Amino acid sequence: MRLTTIATDDGTAAARIIDGTVVALPYPDVVALLTDPAWRTAASSSGIDYGDASALEYNLPAVRPGKTMCCGLNYRSHVLESRTRRELPEYPTLFPKFPDSLTGALSPICLPRASAAVDWEAELGVVMGAPARHVSADEALDLVAGLTAVNDVSMRDWQRRTSEWLQGKNFEASTPVGPVLVTMDEFDDPLDLAISCDVDGQTMQQARTSELLFGIADLVSYASTFTTLRPGDLIVTGTMSGVASAREDQPYLRDGQVVTVTIEGIGSCRNRFYAEAPAPDSL
Amino acid sequence: MRLTTIATDDGTAAARIIDGTVVALPYPDVVALLTDPAWRTAASSSGIDYGDASALEYNLPAVRPGKTMCCGLNYRSHVLESRTRRELPEYPTLFPKFPDSLTGALSPICLPRASAAVDWEAELGVVMGAPARHVSADEALDLVAGLTAVNDVSMRDWQRRTSEWLQGKNFEASTPVGPVLVTMDEFDDPLDLAISCDVDGQTMQQARTSELLFGIADLVSYASTFTTLRPGDLIVTGTMSGVASAREDQPYLRDGQVVTVTIEGIGSCRNRFYAEAPAPDSL
Repeated sequence: MRLTTIATDDGTAAARIIDGTVVALPYPDVVALLTDPAWRTAASSSGIDYGDASALEYNLPAVRPGKTMCCGLNYRSHVLESRTRRELPEYPTLFPKFPDSLTGALSPICLPRASAAVDWEAELGVVMGAPARHVSADEALDLVAGLTAVNDVSMRDWQRRTSEWLQGKNFEASTPVGPVLVTMDEFDDPLDLAISCDVDGQTMQQARTSELLFGIADLVSYASTFTTLRPGDLIVTGTMSGVASAREDQPYLRDGQVVTVTIEGIGSCRNRFYAEAPAPDSL
Repeated sequence: MRLTTIATDDGTAAARIIDGTVVALPYPDVVALLTDPAWRTAASSSGIDYGDASALEYNLPAVRPGKTMCCGLNYRSHVLESRTRRELPEYPTLFPKFPDSLTGALSPICLPRASAAVDWEAELGVVMGAPARHVSADEALDLVAGLTAVNDVSMRDWQRRTSEWLQGKNFEASTPVGPVLVTMDEFDDPLDLAISCDVDGQTMQQARTSELLFGIADLVSYASTFTTLRPGDLIVTGTMSGVASAREDQPYLRDGQVVTVTIEGIGSCRNRFYAEAPAPDSL
């Protein structure tokens, strides 16, 4: 199944995309749908025909959970380009995204006045389909609903102001999630997907998700040691080499550029970046 | 006003404590109350008498917002005890608490099997009373609803596994918030309150909130540069010297110990720590 959250006349709704058609389901969003233990049946049942899928604006995150954890330094190629000490990590490096930091797969994204170093990071997103607490890696995959695409947009100057990356990773509505959540059964091999990022059509990042240092099952099991992962919660699995900050010319994003993150079997987040208007007091 | 969230027969409710009596208000919790722009009037209006305040269990966080940001290294005394480089920070160091990481002011707290280094951190919590985005420090205090007490319980071994502190700061239900949110108008000087922490009656931390390096207004203004602070959102302002990890004997918490964080004009979080049962497979 291919699921997403759509804007409706009176709010938002979970929706299923099937045969090019949008079917709205009686849940306010995908997280609410996944919170229903019978979500697989509920999502397969008939809903309200919402028209042609090609007309969808994808201006909301496909999922907007209360708990989003991102893993840094999770591809060997990115560890090597990022670190002065080039050791592979012993434990997953986890940082948060607040719900307010997420946005739609096709939404324009603001280049804030406050940052001069806005960067891309193509990442696979893992969405929980059941609660997970103290689960082993062997048990973990059965608790995952499916996969989505994420651009972990990063304001590098803010990320590096302190030891903690939160502030550079949580500019409002900076992180697209979608366009859809694809359930695990849809993939030939959900653990080995092509992932890439291009900027204005030029390929900047390219990898396969089988290269993850900590895989999907490892990350779910690890996080479940200290907290309960709830249905809809999102684990973002980290990026590969090729970010702007690690390139010699550091080509941080500029007004009008379009960044496309594509994952095999899921689709693309494709976002135009626009410069924030000058501060009122500078006019 | 003194506000908190209470358990009721059919869920939870916001409540006002007045003259030793609990008055339940028609909102599911304090965050929902504060989200009503007319919350000051609504909270002052009559509600349902819920009995004697001395019987309250305070087993829910006083506020449980979607966005909780904590500031590290925000008292000079703690910077000096924590860092090899003893420079004062140029920017606030911000890390998150997920809603699932919060608990009640009198709730027992688990010492997880997975950690051998559970530590205390007495902190002032700042609760937003209105949305804040791109606000100056001059404007910030008017948008704060009030103050509460927090014990930023920290699993130091997990905190130090990677550069990012998230995993050591987000064990489930480890961080008490309460017992009440006290509105700003109740304090003679809300910017200069005595704060302390004791373990089994022995004073471990003691300071005044006027010693904060980044004050309440600074932190609200800073965070509002990159995201919208919403009503009920919580900023936890950092701890002073005296944590276990910085003491010579590193007296991390043990089964049965009681930690009390007290702030002048607010009250105390007083939590008994208990050892988690052994893993099923070790029995």
